Amino acid sequence: MAPAGRPGAKKGILERLESGEVVIGDGSFLITLEKRGYVKAGLWTPEAVIEHPDAVRQLHMEFLRAGSNVMQTFTFSASEDNMESKWEDVNAAACDLAREVAGKGDALVAGGICQTSIYKYQKDEARIKKLFRQQLEVFAWKNVDFLIAEYFEHVEEAVWAVEVLKESDRPVAVTMCIGPEGDMHDITPGECAVRLVKAVLFLCTGASIVGVNCRFGPDTSLKTMELMKEGLEWAGLKAHLMVQPLGFHAPDCGKEGFVDLPEYPFGLESRVATRWDIQKYAREAYNLGVRYIGGCCGFEPYHIRAIAEELAPERGFLPPASEKHGSWGSGLDMHTKPWIRARARREYWENLLPASGRPFCPSLSKPDF
Amino acid sequence: MAPAGRPGAKKGILERLESGEVVIGDGSFLITLEKRGYVKAGLWTPEAVIEHPDAVRQLHMEFLRAGSNVMQTFTFSASEDNMESKWEDVNAAACDLAREVAGKGDALVAGGICQTSIYKYQKDEARIKKLFRQQLEVFAWKNVDFLIAEYFEHVEEAVWAVEVLKESDRPVAVTMCIGPEGDMHDITPGECAVRLVKAVLFLCTGASIVGVNCRFGPDTSLKTMELMKEGLEWAGLKAHLMVQPLGFHAPDCGKEGFVDLPEYPFGLESRVATRWDIQKYAREAYNLGVRYIGGCCGFEPYHIRAIAEELAPERGFLPPASEKHGSWGSGLDMHTKPWIRARARREYWENLLPASGRPFCPSLSKPDF
Amino acid sequence: MAPAGRPGAKKGILERLESGEVVIGDGSFLITLEKRGYVKAGLWTPEAVIEHPDAVRQLHMEFLRAGSNVMQTFTFSASEDNMESKWEDVNAAACDLAREVAGKGDALVAGGICQTSIYKYQKDEARIKKLFRQQLEVFAWKNVDFLIAEYFEHVEEAVWAVEVLKESDRPVAVTMCIGPEGDMHDITPGECAVRLVKAVLFLCTGASIVGVNCRFGPDTSLKTMELMKEGLEWAGLKAHLMVQPLGFHAPDCGKEGFVDLPEYPFGLESRVATRWDIQKYAREAYNLGVRYIGGCCGFEPYHIRAIAEELAPERGFLPPASEKHGSWGSGLDMHTKPWIRARARREYWENLLPASGRPFCPSLSKPDF
Amino acid sequence: MAPAGRPGAKKGILERLESGEVVIGDGSFLITLEKRGYVKAGLWTPEAVIEHPDAVRQLHMEFLRAGSNVMQTFTFSASEDNMESKWEDVNAAACDLAREVAGKGDALVAGGICQTSIYKYQKDEARIKKLFRQQLEVFAWKNVDFLIAEYFEHVEEAVWAVEVLKESDRPVAVTMCIGPEGDMHDITPGECAVRLVKAVLFLCTGASIVGVNCRFGPDTSLKTMELMKEGLEWAGLKAHLMVQPLGFHAPDCGKEGFVDLPEYPFGLESRVATRWDIQKYAREAYNLGVRYIGGCCGFEPYHIRAIAEELAPERGFLPPASEKHGSWGSGLDMHTKPWIRARARREYWENLLPASGRPFCPSLSKPDF
Repeated sequence: MAPAGRPGAKKGILERLESGEVVIGDGSFLITLEKRGYVKAGLWTPEAVIEHPDAVRQLHMEFLRAGSNVMQTFTFSASEDNMESKWEDVNAAACDLAREVAGKGDALVAGGICQTSIYKYQKDEARIKKLFRQQLEVFAWKNVDFLIAEYFEHVEEAVWAVEVLKESDRPVAVTMCIGPEGDMHDITPGECAVRLVKAVLFLCTGASIVGVNCRFGPDTSLKTMELMKEGLEWAGLKAHLMVQPLGFHAPDCGKEGFVDLPEYPFGLESRVATRWDIQKYAREAYNLGVRYIGGCCGFEPYHIRAIAEELAPERGFLPPASEKHGSWGSGLDMHTKPWIRARARREYWENLLPASGRPFCPSLSKPDF
Repeated sequence: MAPAGRPGAKKGILERLESGEVVIGDGSFLITLEKRGYVKAGLWTPEAVIEHPDAVRQLHMEFLRAGSNVMQTFTFSASEDNMESKWEDVNAAACDLAREVAGKGDALVAGGICQTSIYKYQKDEARIKKLFRQQLEVFAWKNVDFLIAEYFEHVEEAVWAVEVLKESDRPVAVTMCIGPEGDMHDITPGECAVRLVKAVLFLCTGASIVGVNCRFGPDTSLKTMELMKEGLEWAGLKAHLMVQPLGFHAPDCGKEGFVDLPEYPFGLESRVATRWDIQKYAREAYNLGVRYIGGCCGFEPYHIRAIAEELAPERGFLPPASEKHGSWGSGLDMHTKPWIRARARREYWENLLPASGRPFCPSLSKPDF
Repeated sequence: MAPAGRPGAKKGILERLESGEVVIGDGSFLITLEKRGYVKAGLWTPEAVIEHPDAVRQLHMEFLRAGSNVMQTFTFSASEDNMESKWEDVNAAACDLAREVAGKGDALVAGGICQTSIYKYQKDEARIKKLFRQQLEVFAWKNVDFLIAEYFEHVEEAVWAVEVLKESDRPVAVTMCIGPEGDMHDITPGECAVRLVKAVLFLCTGASIVGVNCRFGPDTSLKTMELMKEGLEWAGLKAHLMVQPLGFHAPDCGKEGFVDLPEYPFGLESRVATRWDIQKYAREAYNLGVRYIGGCCGFEPYHIRAIAEELAPERGFLPPASEKHGSWGSGLDMHTKPWIRARARREYWENLLPASGRPFCPSLSKPDF
Repeated sequence: MAPAGRPGAKKGILERLESGEVVIGDGSFLITLEKRGYVKAGLWTPEAVIEHPDAVRQLHMEFLRAGSNVMQTFTFSASEDNMESKWEDVNAAACDLAREVAGKGDALVAGGICQTSIYKYQKDEARIKKLFRQQLEVFAWKNVDFLIAEYFEHVEEAVWAVEVLKESDRPVAVTMCIGPEGDMHDITPGECAVRLVKAVLFLCTGASIVGVNCRFGPDTSLKTMELMKEGLEWAGLKAHLMVQPLGFHAPDCGKEGFVDLPEYPFGLESRVATRWDIQKYAREAYNLGVRYIGGCCGFEPYHIRAIAEELAPERGFLPPASEKHGSWGSGLDMHTKPWIRARARREYWENLLPASGRPFCPSLSKPDF
């Protein structure tokens, strides 16, 4: 099997989703580049695209090799309210890096915006929309393939984002960072989905993409997706579903997600999902009808590869990085120790309950609020 | 504080250690590049240096930024018995990459060899030494700054390696992958250290470096180092001490170390050390008198940075990557949530007992053998 | 404070509850006497009342000293279908033992019946009611103070039990062994409560007592009680609330409760609640409006004492066994070690997260079905 | 199989041990009766023998039924320094209760003394020996079958106790409450054992019994026994070995044992051993050559039964309480649920890793000192 798609002949995001293809998103930039030394925790802004472009390019390359079909511009929080005058250069450079790497495989470029730092204090629609529009103008200039509005705690602000992004003539995906309890004003996931898809429908005919990203682990995010799906069905609306959860196990987090766990952000190691956890997640997302499947904070390239490997039977091909990975641990079948050879099989890894090596630590934490 | 050292004026490894400086090693290549999609688990060979040099260069860069003073050639298992005809190109390319990155900061290039795949089956000294000598010839041609023989389960083979490496006129460091119980023939860490330092002394006057790497977590490796140190003191020998443990917690592993844990190699996530665990390790290593402090499998760039930050008071400077890291979480002091601001202090992170988010998993495993 | 109540002048169960008094139930007989050597696990029948009356009397005494206001006859499963011809002697002897001990303090005697072994296979109302009636006849002859129908998985069978017990002119309490998901036919806790209280009201005017016992831990049982309470409020019905949960932590059990946990019944040790867990439970039950508060399997005498101590401010007295117990660990204040003296305070025990000493065991199990 | 031994024809303790018989000790009195409401934690004195003799008699009965061959007088700390004028009545009553119950089966009466409250402050040999002698006089008057000096932290005081007890013409057993690190003055277990057996040998010819009790869990206590055994072998001395550990898992306790664990004494529930843990312990103790096998704090009657069941093949009979216990869970073979029937076998319980139901709690604690 070889990766499909030739540069120049790429299908668009909606074309793919409407034909039933699985689209694999990318993974974690902020948290991964923090560990590599290029992002500052607390700020969580992407100046690395101008300061250390090689590091960002390399991470895009890793996700591409792992099977991502989307190179999302590394423009999280890269709006004027967070980055001052640097914002414009950062957005432009991020687009160039994403496009350069996308050109080396079957991937589209998605321009990404997220919630502002303003909404929480002042629901100033004009000012907030202006911030979104500034980023959009760069994306349009750089000719991204589609747009993603992500990481919204409030559906109202997410609707504003969609309204702005629809001004461009590109497909729009929108994901909120909410759990099954809904947004910060207690609007349920189902209602959030309905409002977002309606916003889209009001402005253009045709499809749209809606879902959740970040803040919650894979299991919790799939529960939220189920509620969104039910909301859309109940309202008689159609939309493509998209999910990009944390790469961390966080069943114990509260309404605001993992940021309130005591381990956030510098003690999350023991919560990182294994590749096998992610294969299970990918299968469940697929079974739920989600077709845009990726990850957010904590998703490393091998997690994305795990999605691509789990869904290889449906898709018909493996990602390039699978050259370096035997499915279900099969690379261990030549090990000199028989008990390690015995791990070269699906049953072993599917049933493993990995130990933490930390006997003084609990398995769950109480959120800090 | 700014990183010390100018290219062209670098001090050698022994010069540094003899003047009491701390030398910071680098971290994990095989396991880290496996997760990035460039190394195959099971084989664990470094053909990435020729197949994907950008990915290897980037990882070297990250360790350099994090504070490493040593760019070890990515030549683990790159001997003829493991890689056939490719071995020579791999060694040469690995040297070039290490040198290129070392030139961008205050780092030396170390040529690295490890135990052969042969010794376990046939203790053929001539054949094994020939394999070591082949790699050494490339290292000499590429003019590495010093040599590391690492990851030996049997002290006899390690002695052979040291004997070969001493043929070059470069400093030699040697580390075994043993725990407190000693090598595979039950030779104690103390006796191993004595044999290795004597081998060195027999062939040259002057200093040497001895220690352990891989297979065991930080705590266990420091216990082994203590035994090595006692052995050397008891024998009246002097050597510099070096430790490069796993970046995983593995208090439950048996004599052969983490390879026998059920989680090896694809379910180790929850055992990954936090940066705070590594600061504690760095301090304890320093207090024990170890001055070459680095990591092995599982050590990511931010773990190396944690060593550099913990020992910044002694060294007088921080590494470049600390531009992106507030000491002890201080980057969180501007967070909008007060309970997250409260995490911007040493006491918080030192006392945190991180949860795994996995209530169905145990904290320890029984080794599989 | 001294225990209230004189023999001969005891208030009845409804009189107590209607005046707002807290009634403290008793605890575990089957599981406790299994550990003492008098009950056979698997059978779970109470022939000990005739084989080893001293052992049963002693356990009644311990609960009385601990503060129980109810001596429930040890007649669980003592119906003809489970015990053949022995059933009658067992019921009579159990009444005598309960009465003897009740006479030594402020406790009432409650005759207890439970679900039959028949209902699951054959919903033969006449046959099942006959079994209940047989036990009731003994209770009437022995003149018990009130009646408890407990441990019902199906509300229909519980209603039949209430209908039979109401034939006697005594107050009837009924508890089901269900969790928040409802009975085995998916009838919600709220609806179960309504059916049971209506059954009662249909046959007599005046109050009744309804709740849950066994199968689920304290936290889960209080959630179920909340649902029962809501159901009753919604239906405009009034009843006294009663809860007698497990003395085990079982947040991980499924719909049928702890019997499906892999640890049932011989590996439950590490789930046993502490006295402090039970004080918390008693307070929460009280705050929810429950006034008949006791325990079921796993509730030892000191757990009952913990209820009595927690609610001593409301009740105005401590139980006799508190002579041997300093509140909140105060008995430790004379310990010779200062760090143990430091445990003689409420904050210490309220905040303790007790370790299991079992690092190879998980914290939760997956139910076995 | 039926219990051996007729009253009047009982073999003495040394006769049994010298013929190779297994002698089963009894279990926990203080902690068990604290939970039943008759002992005050912190004081840990046995006035229950006069205040509530029925409760004490019942516990003796349970241990007898469970298979104990020794009814140890409940006289822990019942010396004048701890109990003032009550001490004499308590010792006398305790002897009567132990004798009464011993008469109902194949059990001997052992008079028990323990370390004084004085030694730690003032090593006044004359005063301490006087306290021991006072208790001994009651034991002699009541004609106990042998003597146990137990729970000594300092070998010197234990030697004094043995010297006093040898004044009576009865066999003497002595157990210290130490772990593998030795007594409070760092005297190793091996040397402690030697000193205690020599003390005995100096005063009488013939055998003696030495070992450990309390403070440490089964696994740790067996390690200490191994060191005692090695010490005796090295010194060429012979003695019978005796072990009576905690019924709690406490691998994480420090030198002083479980009293320094944060859970002591009111949060130890989750550490209680299962019956299967105790079967394993009994087998290992037997294999080590220990023939007096019992328990201390935390050992409930069913734990003693577990010793008797594990060693039934060697002893040729089961204890009376096994009438109510199917070996290895066999009583579950008639359960209506097939997955519970599947638990009626040894492999199930031997391999079970019981969950704590406490996901917010760690598996190990750090001792508090």
